[in-house]
Parts: sequence; structure tokens; C-alpha cells
Amino acid sequence: MSHQYDHGRRDRIGMPEAVLCSSKTPTQISAIANELAQVGNPALFTRLSDTLVGEVDASITSAWDHDSTSGTAVLNGSLPARAGRVAVVAAGTSDMLVAAEAARTLEFSGVSAELIVDVGVAGLWRLEQRLDEIKAADVVIAVAGMDAALVSVLGGLVGSPVIAAPTSVGYGVATGGTTALNSALASCAQGVTVVNIDNGFGAACAAIRMLSMADRFAGGQP
Amino acid sequence: MSHQYDHGRRDRIGMPEAVLCSSKTPTQISAIANELAQVGNPALFTRLSDTLVGEVDASITSAWDHDSTSGTAVLNGSLPARAGRVAVVAAGTSDMLVAAEAARTLEFSGVSAELIVDVGVAGLWRLEQRLDEIKAADVVIAVAGMDAALVSVLGGLVGSPVIAAPTSVGYGVATGGTTALNSALASCAQGVTVVNIDNGFGAACAAIRMLSMADRFAGGQP
Amino acid sequence: MSHQYDHGRRDRIGMPEAVLCSSKTPTQISAIANELAQVGNPALFTRLSDTLVGEVDASITSAWDHDSTSGTAVLNGSLPARAGRVAVVAAGTSDMLVAAEAARTLEFSGVSAELIVDVGVAGLWRLEQRLDEIKAADVVIAVAGMDAALVSVLGGLVGSPVIAAPTSVGYGVATGGTTALNSALASCAQGVTVVNIDNGFGAACAAIRMLSMADRFAGGQP
Amino acid sequence: MSHQYDHGRRDRIGMPEAVLCSSKTPTQISAIANELAQVGNPALFTRLSDTLVGEVDASITSAWDHDSTSGTAVLNGSLPARAGRVAVVAAGTSDMLVAAEAARTLEFSGVSAELIVDVGVAGLWRLEQRLDEIKAADVVIAVAGMDAALVSVLGGLVGSPVIAAPTSVGYGVATGGTTALNSALASCAQGVTVVNIDNGFGAACAAIRMLSMADRFAGGQP
Amino acid sequence: MSHQYDHGRRDRIGMPEAVLCSSKTPTQISAIANELAQVGNPALFTRLSDTLVGEVDASITSAWDHDSTSGTAVLNGSLPARAGRVAVVAAGTSDMLVAAEAARTLEFSGVSAELIVDVGVAGLWRLEQRLDEIKAADVVIAVAGMDAALVSVLGGLVGSPVIAAPTSVGYGVATGGTTALNSALASCAQGVTVVNIDNGFGAACAAIRMLSMADRFAGGQP
Amino acid sequence: MSHQYDHGRRDRIGMPEAVLCSSKTPTQISAIANELAQVGNPALFTRLSDTLVGEVDASITSAWDHDSTSGTAVLNGSLPARAGRVAVVAAGTSDMLVAAEAARTLEFSGVSAELIVDVGVAGLWRLEQRLDEIKAADVVIAVAGMDAALVSVLGGLVGSPVIAAPTSVGYGVATGGTTALNSALASCAQGVTVVNIDNGFGAACAAIRMLSMADRFAGGQP
Amino acid sequence: MSHQYDHGRRDRIGMPEAVLCSSKTPTQISAIANELAQVGNPALFTRLSDTLVGEVDASITSAWDHDSTSGTAVLNGSLPARAGRVAVVAAGTSDMLVAAEAARTLEFSGVSAELIVDVGVAGLWRLEQRLDEIKAADVVIAVAGMDAALVSVLGGLVGSPVIAAPTSVGYGVATGGTTALNSALASCAQGVTVVNIDNGFGAACAAIRMLSMADRFAGGQP
Amino acid sequence: MSHQYDHGRRDRIGMPEAVLCSSKTPTQISAIANELAQVGNPALFTRLSDTLVGEVDASITSAWDHDSTSGTAVLNGSLPARAGRVAVVAAGTSDMLVAAEAARTLEFSGVSAELIVDVGVAGLWRLEQRLDEIKAADVVIAVAGMDAALVSVLGGLVGSPVIAAPTSVGYGVATGGTTALNSALASCAQGVTVVNIDNGFGAACAAIRMLSMADRFAGGQP
Repeated sequence: MSHQYDHGRRDRIGMPEAVLCSSKTPTQISAIANELAQVGNPALFTRLSDTLVGEVDASITSAWDHDSTSGTAVLNGSLPARAGRVAVVAAGTSDMLVAAEAARTLEFSGVSAELIVDVGVAGLWRLEQRLDEIKAADVVIAVAGMDAALVSVLGGLVGSPVIAAPTSVGYGVATGGTTALNSALASCAQGVTVVNIDNGFGAACAAIRMLSMADRFAGGQP
Repeated sequence: MSHQYDHGRRDRIGMPEAVLCSSKTPTQISAIANELAQVGNPALFTRLSDTLVGEVDASITSAWDHDSTSGTAVLNGSLPARAGRVAVVAAGTSDMLVAAEAARTLEFSGVSAELIVDVGVAGLWRLEQRLDEIKAADVVIAVAGMDAALVSVLGGLVGSPVIAAPTSVGYGVATGGTTALNSALASCAQGVTVVNIDNGFGAACAAIRMLSMADRFAGGQP
Repeated sequence: MSHQYDHGRRDRIGMPEAVLCSSKTPTQISAIANELAQVGNPALFTRLSDTLVGEVDASITSAWDHDSTSGTAVLNGSLPARAGRVAVVAAGTSDMLVAAEAARTLEFSGVSAELIVDVGVAGLWRLEQRLDEIKAADVVIAVAGMDAALVSVLGGLVGSPVIAAPTSVGYGVATGGTTALNSALASCAQGVTVVNIDNGFGAACAAIRMLSMADRFAGGQP
Repeated sequence: MSHQYDHGRRDRIGMPEAVLCSSKTPTQISAIANELAQVGNPALFTRLSDTLVGEVDASITSAWDHDSTSGTAVLNGSLPARAGRVAVVAAGTSDMLVAAEAARTLEFSGVSAELIVDVGVAGLWRLEQRLDEIKAADVVIAVAGMDAALVSVLGGLVGSPVIAAPTSVGYGVATGGTTALNSALASCAQGVTVVNIDNGFGAACAAIRMLSMADRFAGGQP
Repeated sequence: MSHQYDHGRRDRIGMPEAVLCSSKTPTQISAIANELAQVGNPALFTRLSDTLVGEVDASITSAWDHDSTSGTAVLNGSLPARAGRVAVVAAGTSDMLVAAEAARTLEFSGVSAELIVDVGVAGLWRLEQRLDEIKAADVVIAVAGMDAALVSVLGGLVGSPVIAAPTSVGYGVATGGTTALNSALASCAQGVTVVNIDNGFGAACAAIRMLSMADRFAGGQP
Repeated sequence: MSHQYDHGRRDRIGMPEAVLCSSKTPTQISAIANELAQVGNPALFTRLSDTLVGEVDASITSAWDHDSTSGTAVLNGSLPARAGRVAVVAAGTSDMLVAAEAARTLEFSGVSAELIVDVGVAGLWRLEQRLDEIKAADVVIAVAGMDAALVSVLGGLVGSPVIAAPTSVGYGVATGGTTALNSALASCAQGVTVVNIDNGFGAACAAIRMLSMADRFAGGQP
Repeated sequence: MSHQYDHGRRDRIGMPEAVLCSSKTPTQISAIANELAQVGNPALFTRLSDTLVGEVDASITSAWDHDSTSGTAVLNGSLPARAGRVAVVAAGTSDMLVAAEAARTLEFSGVSAELIVDVGVAGLWRLEQRLDEIKAADVVIAVAGMDAALVSVLGGLVGSPVIAAPTSVGYGVATGGTTALNSALASCAQGVTVVNIDNGFGAACAAIRMLSMADRFAGGQP
Repeated sequence: MSHQYDHGRRDRIGMPEAVLCSSKTPTQISAIANELAQVGNPALFTRLSDTLVGEVDASITSAWDHDSTSGTAVLNGSLPARAGRVAVVAAGTSDMLVAAEAARTLEFSGVSAELIVDVGVAGLWRLEQRLDEIKAADVVIAVAGMDAALVSVLGGLVGSPVIAAPTSVGYGVATGGTTALNSALASCAQGVTVVNIDNGFGAACAAIRMLSMADRFAGGQP
């Protein structure tokens, strides 16, 4: 059985070629990576833990560029640089995996990403110190677990698109991230949008969709 | 079958005599109120909608002091005034029923209550304008539905006890108040405590427990 | 107790002045509307059922422009027209209330909105017939209940930002809209974002955030 | 304690003899397999991970035919070939375990199964390329996790019985497969039926019931 | 905005033209019915309570054939009779609405349906008395709420396709039908399939898909 | 910190001295067992996996009588034999751990227990073969996972007290045992009672309460 | 379609003939009652609200004995008196409907029932005052909503069978009774059993099963 | 990326500097600990399992004071002693981890803590024996899993603030602690407050807020 990739996806809708590894076996990942290496298109592998990397074919691990902090690997290089800046704002150190996945997806896609961490609302002054940087970005990705209060506070202070990426960080009622997700969906700040729990990759893709639209918008407006 | 009231509760643990009406029939409420009217102790009736009041015995409705905004009625007068001030802080108009229930329970119990509404974090400047008032209170009750982000923001700004009373206000994932409840429980602010959804009465009782302890503490410290 | 409105919100983050009516009493809505009528800023009232309208002060109902299909009312006129076109795409007639709320919020905010209904994926040819119209929009709002399969299909065909507004339409496991919500969040299409169940207003606000960003982006690109 | 097998099941209702291994100890599996080996009837073992196989009696592992991809083993050979073709259609590589369990159950039961993978709706053209093959099958098993949008799209394009086998593939709200399950149950396509999450075996048994009925139907219709 | 019906659906996949009324307004139902009346194709309206019927245009209520027991109406006559018999087996009187919806959908589609009620497993002899009738059917629809034990018992006794239609009948943990649904999905009987809670219409459509396949199967077998 | 055992429990309410090990550390279990060994009263340890036993003090493992099948250990011997017979009826091999825990608790308490396995309702004839044995028991404990249909079938056939012990056996919607639990609670058979998921110990204790009552009843009836 | 009653149920398993009315239409209830009136066996109707009674055939309402407090009606008289006493212990007035349903079911079945109300554990002295009465009963039914702490306290003080009937009384997390149900199932007191939420009827039937067993036990012990 | 600590938190709101370790990597914990060691402020590390400690930099493990029972470590010494006594009351040995985390947080913060274990309500006499000690405390932390009945019993006997810390101890419906949490929130005792599941640290912080308030109260009352 050979795979049937959607290589036309970037042309069709501007989304990068990407492989979600967490529910695949090392054998499956190796097979996919080998096929993509032959095709030669830039590709991103996500949810790639160090353990999983250790079980993949050696030929692949020497070919791709793996980054432990974000659990991602890049094969066949990145995409060309493009206009637009995205701020990835994370409440705390524990949200780092998701924030880094978002930042690396953006960088792989040629978009400039700034990572701003440790600005949880329990110490509001920390967010206020970084607010000008955040306001200067075209799109804001808010990464937060537990109560995800950061999402509403950001949404009330910033007029740019705010994409909430709730994380599974926390224990008790926060376990698994449903509380952060629902809190972001029920946000009292208007016009905040949300992606799946821990979906840093998806938040980055959403930002890319917005920047591509802005590009067309800029081109089409006399 | 006659009722078996816990008239000693105030002496035993300092909690007011109170009747939760929402799951009782008008006949049951009338019977209880008549018995309490004869005993003569001050008593508070909660979750008493206008509709329910209209179905209770006329002798009772002329005897008690009913307030529609909080859905409460006071029978046989209030308890003596005592030291301590509580700030009841509500995110928006829709949280008014719960906030007013808390405030009326406090007033019935002789505690001074200040109601501060419309300070949701989507417009953070509104909360900042009232912050000095809130900081001056001995105990803060934070009333909020939807994402309940107000709870974490308050908990990070104020050192007093913060009691979160999540409300069932909202729709979609906010329906029924579970999102607000879980958000408050998972709050990134340290040492915030929580009561059941829509339980303004319970939040007030918790504040009374704290003020009573402080009274004893003040008395017992040389 | 007077209300404390966030009149600076539009200047601060570009969001329209809006009042969510579903969890407020007719008395509260009348009070708020009277205050806003005096201020004179354009304001939008949402979740305003015909029943609720019937219980509001007559002075208000003659002042605002109420629309039953979307359950909204506009007070003090709409905001000035601005660039950008949004396609509001709904799976079926039952999703009309949410789709119309999104469309009316956009129109109130000066944004051109096109409503495309009856394009559920059970009859895929219907969506294909309208695809060129949808692709021509700057932002797409996908309104769907039940399995919300429309979201993934649209996300795979269109490169613009796709905002999913899941609806509470359906019965059994679809009751309340959680299945549609989770389906949209777990979408196999990259970069789709999601708002709360039945939140047509929020989806429109998210689109406005994106168009405002594109405006700035267009201005800043030489 | 000896086991009490239901050896008459195939005669009674046409279902194959099968043992679900995932909640049994290696000792229990060995005991059952030894008893079945003596009886001599063809039997299928499902949910048999490589780890579990490593802990079972060596006499058994040399007797049965184990397949890692589907996590199944066949003891005492397969059942005789019979009429009818089933298409097992899977959204992606990650759904392979469940799809292969369905295909192997069919083959063990003498039914011809065709496995069609990587046809998720995010790239709809891939499904369209394979549609004629799928339409030619008597029964279609749709295997999909996450949003399971494949189920509705297939159900709208194909008139044959469509059996949805939702999978536990995914993270966040997709964890455990409930979103895929509910999405399939709430499908906007008419007459789709559903089996338990990850139940490839059950989907195959349902297809066998349908083919047996068709056999009788063919025989009984003049 | 005019509607965009999927009139080709019956030709494409053999499913009847049907309108789910429960989440539509009387105005929407009237508009759809008027358009369908002009087209002239047979159409089925489901989830049509007596209350809803009372609010629909009089021209429609005189044109269609409404049945209170099943909450359905037939417009423009039924479809031609076809081969195949379906047994609709219901645990108790309370499951009647769903069972009747299934039976009426079948009859509207030209399929012979037999309704067998009051055979819950708490009195197993009642089911055993009717077992020969049930075994004689081509397809069995099992309608049951609460614990839905009827599904597993039937699935173990009958070799035909068994489609479970769980109902929302019951209280406490049975409220809403999730227990019946999950019980049917987790059935210990092999190859049972399931439709959404209360979805008598969908169960009937699934049976029609199976009978159509059997028709083709019969035709294609020499 | 020394422990404060409830040694009077057997005299007070007739329940055996028992220690739930699954949420205790090996150190805690060793300390408790050493204290109980000195006291000398018969005691039962439950949820004692082989792994856990391997980490407990050797002095203890030589003192108690551990049984792997039920995950229990008996210290200081069993209680005296008493009248009454209990049938522990389990649907399948996978339910063995819970069934054996119930049987061993009964035997430790001096009550005669008969274990009847592999009588799931998917093959009803197996249950019918053992029905006379089951009817002869004073109390019936029904152990079943997945859909727990055995509970309702037994409850409809037997007049004795039927105690359902739902198990966590199964996958998908059956994961964790909630479906079996809810199915048992919603049973269509009258007067069935239920204990917590996997609580074989509690089911046995409930049977002991009933037999003790019957003892008193027998003594008190002239 | 005529009904197929299980008139042999009392002979077979000792359970009373009973009709659950809450999910039946007035027409269905009238039809069933008329048939049962002709048969002449004593029958109990449960969940029969005053509203529902008002819609049933007048011939029935004059024939049966309806009681509003318990929502039950008795047709054709009660069953003969038998040995055994059951204490129905309820936490508060709000639990009265369920407690009265249990008591009336017992009385209809010829069993003596004592109703003890207002003994919630928030005022533990009230329970202690009635403890001797409760201990004197053969079986105890504990009726409680909210946290259902009464169940564990009773289970620790009483050696008789304790059947928990959790109620749907309460708001917030207590809504619908799931918290009370789970609290009773997770009770720290050994050997407590549980019935479905609000199932006073089922709790009474369980008590009858136990008393019947005790009867046989008494007869069979020399 | 350097961390941005909230060192002013103790001055601002009186809360101790603390690091939640459970969702951080050993590398992240080491980095944070090294930075805090240089700053020199007393800091508490929580959720620090022995396994995690073994993976942290050796320089850190020699610098902090780690305690396995509570899973905490103290760096740079404790805070100065202050007035106030807190009773930490736990139902059983299994709740020890959470109870010890609360006690250690208090001791680190300079507050006297008394640990009282094995007072579950299944043996009520044990609690009654310790009641005078508990009543003498200024604040009571009630630590309990499963049904958390201890919370309501304590809340009814003690007038001081009662903070419930529900634990994840238990199995079946108790798994994860939601039943204990909801039971505490729905407590029939007035004015009990609740923190997140297993949040011994948060319960201690809440007690500190209350004692700080009492300190100010004592100072401010003439």
C-alpha cells in the first residue's frame, strides 16, 4: 500500500505540507519521510517526541532537522520568507511545547514569529510590560492552560486577530485542557477564535491564512 | 409530618437560618415559613422567584420582606450589625442575581456589603478604576460567568481572601456555569477558593466564617 | 447602581458596542438601551427573541431597528462602510438564526456580508456550485450544526481564513452543539479556527479583527 | 474453572468465533487458545498487541497466524470464501490499525475486502479519484478519527450501506474518539450506521450480517 | 433567499426526500412545504409535533397526511412498493414515538414494516413468543431506551442485520438517551450497528440502504 | 503519625476489616499490615497487584495469604463460617478479577460463594443452562462490563436480591466502565441495586448486610 | 396494537405490577389503565404528576387512588400485608417526592414503611436523635440529593442493608443528581448499594427482594 | 529566553514564591531553580516526585530540602513564623500526599499546621474524638477523596472557615477526583469553600489569605 499525499495543498489553499506523528508508528513515520524525501518538497513533522525520533530510521534522522523543544522536524528546508509578524504569547514555562510548535511552524512557513513567555495574568504587570511588542504584531497567538485567563485579557487589550491555543497543562479540573479550551471559547472578549487543545501547529496555520488574505487584500486595494 | 429545624446552627457554627426554596413546592415553603414565623428567629429564604412568591400563602408574603433582584426574602428581621466589610464584585449585569443574593445574605447577617458591577476583564480599565475600593475590603467575593477571567485577575491583584462565585450566565460551552466553575478552580492565582455555581448565598456564608474567625483572632491576640 | 459601559472599546480594539440580551431581564435591557440611546453611539443588541422584545419598554422598541430572523436590534444607526467581503456559509435552514446574526453584525459594522445557505455536505454538488463565490470572499464563516462536516470540507477547498461557528441544531448526540463544536476543533483541515456554539456575533467580530489587520497590512506594505 | 464457549454461534447467527484479548491476561489468553486449538474450529483473536503475543504460551504463538498491522491472529485456518465485496475506506495512515482489523476479520470470514487509505476530506480530490472503486463495493466501512467528516461525505455520495468505524486517533477534543463517534452518529447523511470506537471487528461483522441477508434475499426472491 | 433542495438524492443514493422539522420555525416549514408541493415529488416531514402542525400554513396541513403517533407527515404520496420486510421491535410503550417514526419512514419508502412492541428483556418470555416473526424479517430495527438490553439479546438471537435505535426514554442516568446509546455501541453481540438517539428515521434509511444492496446483489448473482 | 483503625466496625455494623491498597504506597501498606498483624484480627487487603506485592515488606508477604486472580490477601485467617449462599455470576473471562474479588471477600467473611462465569447474554442459552443454580442462591452478584445486559436479564429471571457490580472491561464507549454502570442503574428490571465500578468487594459486603438481616429476621420471626 | 403485559412477574420474581408514566402520553396511560382495570390485578402507577392526572380519562381517575405527594396512583387495591419494616430516611423536605414514592411502593406491596425526614448531616444531632428508630428497621432506604453525605454517615452507623436513592435536588454541580449518585457509589461506607437517581420505586423494590429472601431464609433455617 | 518571575508577589498579595513542577521538564525545573537560587528568596517547589528529583541537576538537589511524602522542596529556607493555626484533616492514609503538601506549604510560609488523619465518616467516632483539636484551629483544611463526606460533616460541626481539598483517590466513579470535588461544592453545610482537586498547595494559600486578613482585622479594630 503506497501513500497518497496531498502535494497540491500549498498551491490550493496555501497550507504547508505536514505530518502529525503522535498517532503513527515509527515504521509508518519512516515510510512517509522516505517518500517525502524523494519528492523533495519542504515538509514539517509535528508531535515528534525524542523517544519517537529514537525509533525512526537513521537515514531519516540524519536528513531532517529535529528540534526537541517544539517536538518538530523540518525536511527539505523551509519555505521562502514572506511579510507579516506573529506574536506567540504564552502564560508560563509549562506552555512552552505548544508555543514552540506554533513558532516553528511559522518559521518553517517563512513567517516571522516572536515568542513571549511568562506573562500569565496572576502577575498582570508582566503582560503590561510586553504589551507594546504584542500590539505591534499583525496576529497574536495566545497560548495558555489552566483557566486560560490570558486569552480574555489579551482579547480586551489588542485589536489584532487573537488566536487562542489552549494547552493541556494543569491537574484536577485542568487535566487534558478542556477547562482552558472552554474558557477561551466562552471568552468575554469579542472576536477571539480558538483552535484544538495543544494545537500550536493549527494556530500557526490559522495565522498564515490571515496573512495570506491580508497579502491579497493589500494587492487588490487600489 | 412536622419539620425538624436546626435552630441551634447559628449558636453552633455561626451560620444564619436559611431556607433554599427552588426545589420546594409552594405548599412546603408556606408550611416552613409559618413554623418559622411562630418561632420568631430571623430567617432568610433564597431562590425565591416572583412566580414562586405568587403561589405562597398570603399570610407569609405579607410577613416577610421579599426582594426580586436577589430572589430572597427576610422573615423576622435581620441579625445585629457586626464588624467587617465585604466587596461583592460582579463582571456584568447578567451576574446581578447571584451578586445580589450574596449581598443580601451579608446584610441579613449584619455584615456591610459593597456591590461593584460591570468590571469584566474585557475592559480592564474599569476594574482598575475600582481597585482601591476592592482592596479596602476584608473579603472579596468575585461573581462571574462565562470564562470567569475576573477571578484570576482579582486573585493576582488583591491579597485578601477571594471567594469565587461562578455563575450560569452564558450560552454554548458556558451553559450551566461549568466553564466558569472550572476556570475558577484552575485559576492561576494562588489561594482563590470557590463555591458552587450561582451560590451567592454560600459565598456570603464563607465570608462570614472568615470574619468570625478574624473576630476571634483579634480577641485572642494580646 | 448605574452601568459602567466600555464606550472606548471601538477605539481601543475596533470592536462594536454590543449587548448580549439572553441572560438579562427586560428591565435590565430597557435600562441599558435607554442609557445607550442618550449616549448616541451605534449599538447592537443580540439574542433578542420576539418574546423578549415584547417585554421591553415601548420607547426602546420604537427607537431601535429589530430583526426577527437574526434576533438582533440596531440602535443609533450602523457604522460606516469599510472594505472587505465576508461569506457566511450555512449548512441548512436550521442554522439560519446563527448565520443571520453573523451577517447582521457584519452589516452593522459596515462590512459587506453574503449569506449562502443549504450547502450541507450530504449533497456535495450544492457546495461545489457556490464554490467560486465563496473563494472570492476575504473571510469565510462556516455555520453548521450536527456533525459540522461542512467546516472540514470548506477548510480543504478554500485558502482564506475559515471561522467555524458551530450551532446547537440537532438532537441526540448533537443536542446543544457540542458535537459540532468538537468536530470543528478536531477538523482535519489545517488552520480553521472556531468560536463558541451559536456565536454568530463572535464569528463576525473575528472577521472584523482580520479585515482591520489586513487594512493596516495593506497600508503598511509599499 | 473451565470456559463455556458459544461454539454454536456461527450456526445460530453466522458470526465468527472470536476472542477479544485486550482485557485478558496472557494466562487467560493461553488457556482459551489451547482449548480452541483442541476443538479445531477456525477462531480469530483481536486486540493482540506484539507485547501481549510475547507473553502468551509458545505453543500457541507457533500455532496461530499473527499479524502485527491489524493486531489479530487466526487459529485453525479461515472460513470458506463467500460472495460479496466490502470496501474499507480510511481517512489516513493513523487509522490503519482499525481498518486492518476490519479487513482481516472479513478475510478470515471468507469475504473479499479492499483497503483504501489516505482519502481524508481535507483533500477531497483524493476521495473523488477512488470513488468508482468505492461505489462498486456491496458494503462500505468508513474508518475515520478526529472529525470523521469522511463519514458524511461518503454517506452523501454512495448508496450502499455505510458503516462508520470511528477511531481514537487524534489529540485534544479528539482524544479517545468520542468526537469522531458523535460526529458519525450526528451525520447529515441519511442512513449511515455506526459501531463502537476502534471497533473494526464489529464493523466487519455488521457487513457480514448484511451480506448474509443479501444471500438469503437473492435466494428467496424468484 | 430561496432554498436549494437536493432533489437528485433519491436517484443518487436511494434515500427519500425528507425534512427534519424540530429545529425549524413554522414559517420555514411552511415555505419549504410550499416549494415541495409545487415540485410534486413525494416528501416526508419528521419531528412534526401536533403543536408545530398547528402553527403551519393551513394550505399545507390540508395537503399533507399527518400522523401524530409518529410525528410525521407525507406530502405528494408515498414511493412505490418494493421487496424486503423490516421488523421494528420496541421494548415498551414509551419507545413508540421512535418506533413509529421508523415504521412510517419505511412505509413511505415502499418497504413493508412490522411493529412489535412490549418485548423488553425484563420479561424475556415476551420476546421469545415473538422470536419467529422477528427472525423472518430481512432487517431488524431494535428500539430501546434506558439500558437498551434488548439490543444485545436480539443481536445474540438473530443473524440478520440488527440496527439499534436508542431512545431518550427514561430518567436519572437514562435522561437524554446516552446510556441506551452507549449500551448499544458496547453491545456484547457481534455486528450490531447503531444510529443516533431517537433517530427512527435514520434507522429506517439504513435498512433501505441494506435492502437496496440486497436487491442489486440478487440481481447480480447468476 | 500512627494510624487510627476502626477495629469496632465488625461489632458495630458487621463489616469485615479491610484495606484498599490501590492508592497507597508500598511503605504505607507495609506499615498498616504490620500494625494489623500485631492486633491479630482477621483482615482483608484488596486491589493488591502482583507488582505491589513485590514492593511490600517481606515480613508481610510471608504472613498473609495472597491470591493473584482476585488481587487480595488475607491476614490473620478468615472469619467463622455462617449461613447463606451467594452466586457470583460473571459475563466473561475479562470480568474475572472483579468476580474473584467478590468471591474471596465472601469466603473471607465465612459466606459460601459460587462463581459462575461465561454466561453473557450474547449466547443466552449459556445463562439458561445455569439458571437453576443461580435461582438457588440467597443473593446474586451480577458482574458485567461493556453493556452489562446480563444485569437486566438476571433481574428479570430471578426474585432474589440482585447486586450489579459493573466492570471497567471494554474499549471505546465502554472504557472505564461508565456505560456498564449506567446501564445497570437504568436497568429495566425492578429492584436491582448497584455498586461502584469494579467494586467486587463492596458487592460482597452488600450481600453480607443482606444475609445478616435475614439472620436477624429468621431469629425474630416466630 | 394491544399491550403485552408481564402479569406473571409477581409470581416469577415477586415484583409488583407497575407503570412508569413520565414518558407516556395521557392517551397511552389511559389505555393501559383501562386494560389493567379489566384484568383486576393490583397495579401501581408512578411519576404521575397532577398535570398528567388532569389529562387522563375521567373513568380512570375515579377508579384509582392518586396521591400527589408521591406522584403515584393505586388501581385495584394493595397487596396483602407481609413481614418486615423499612425505614425511608430523607435528608430534607426537597427529597420528599422520592421518599414518598418509596414509602408508597412499600405500602402498596404490603410492607410497613416509616418515613424519617430532615436528618441531613449538616446538623448531625438530628440524625443521632432518630438513630434507634433507624437501627430497628430491617432495611434502610437513604434518600438524599446534593452531596448525599447522609448515605455514608448512615452506612457507617447501621449494619442493615442500606439502599441509597440519590435525588436530583440541588443546583449547579448538583443539577440532575449525578453528584449525589456518584457520591453514593463512591461511599466510604462498606456495602451500601445504589439505585438510579430519583428512583424511589426501585429502592422499594430492592427492599422487597431482600425481605422476600429473608422470608425464605427464615423458612429454610431450622 | 530568560524567565520573568513575579518576585513582587509576596509583597503585593502575600503569596509565597512557588513553582509547580508536574508539567515542566527536568531541564526547565533546573533552569528555574538555578535562577531562584541566585536571587536568594525562599521558594517552594511542588508536585516534585522522586522520579523527577532524580532527573534534576545535582547542584539543585543538594541545595534544596526535598520531602517525599509531600512531593515538595524548599529552596533558600522558609519564611518567618507568624500567628495562626491551621488544622489539616484527612479522611485516610491515601489522602496523605495532598494533606502533606498543604501542611508543608503552611510550614514553609511560617504558619503552624496540625495534621489529623484517618477520620473518615464511615467510622464517625474517630472524628468525634479529635473534634476539640479541630475546633481549636483558626482555619480547617478538609482533605478527602471518594465521596468527600468528611467535608459536609466537618462543615456542620465547626464554625471556622472550612476549605475543602478534594483528592483524586479512589476508583470507578471516584477516578480523578471529580466526585469528591462536586460533592464538596454541593455540600449541604453552609459556607464551605473548595479548591481544585489535589490542590493542597492552594488550600494552604487560601488559609494564609484568611490569616493575613485576620491579622489586619486584629490590627485595625480598636
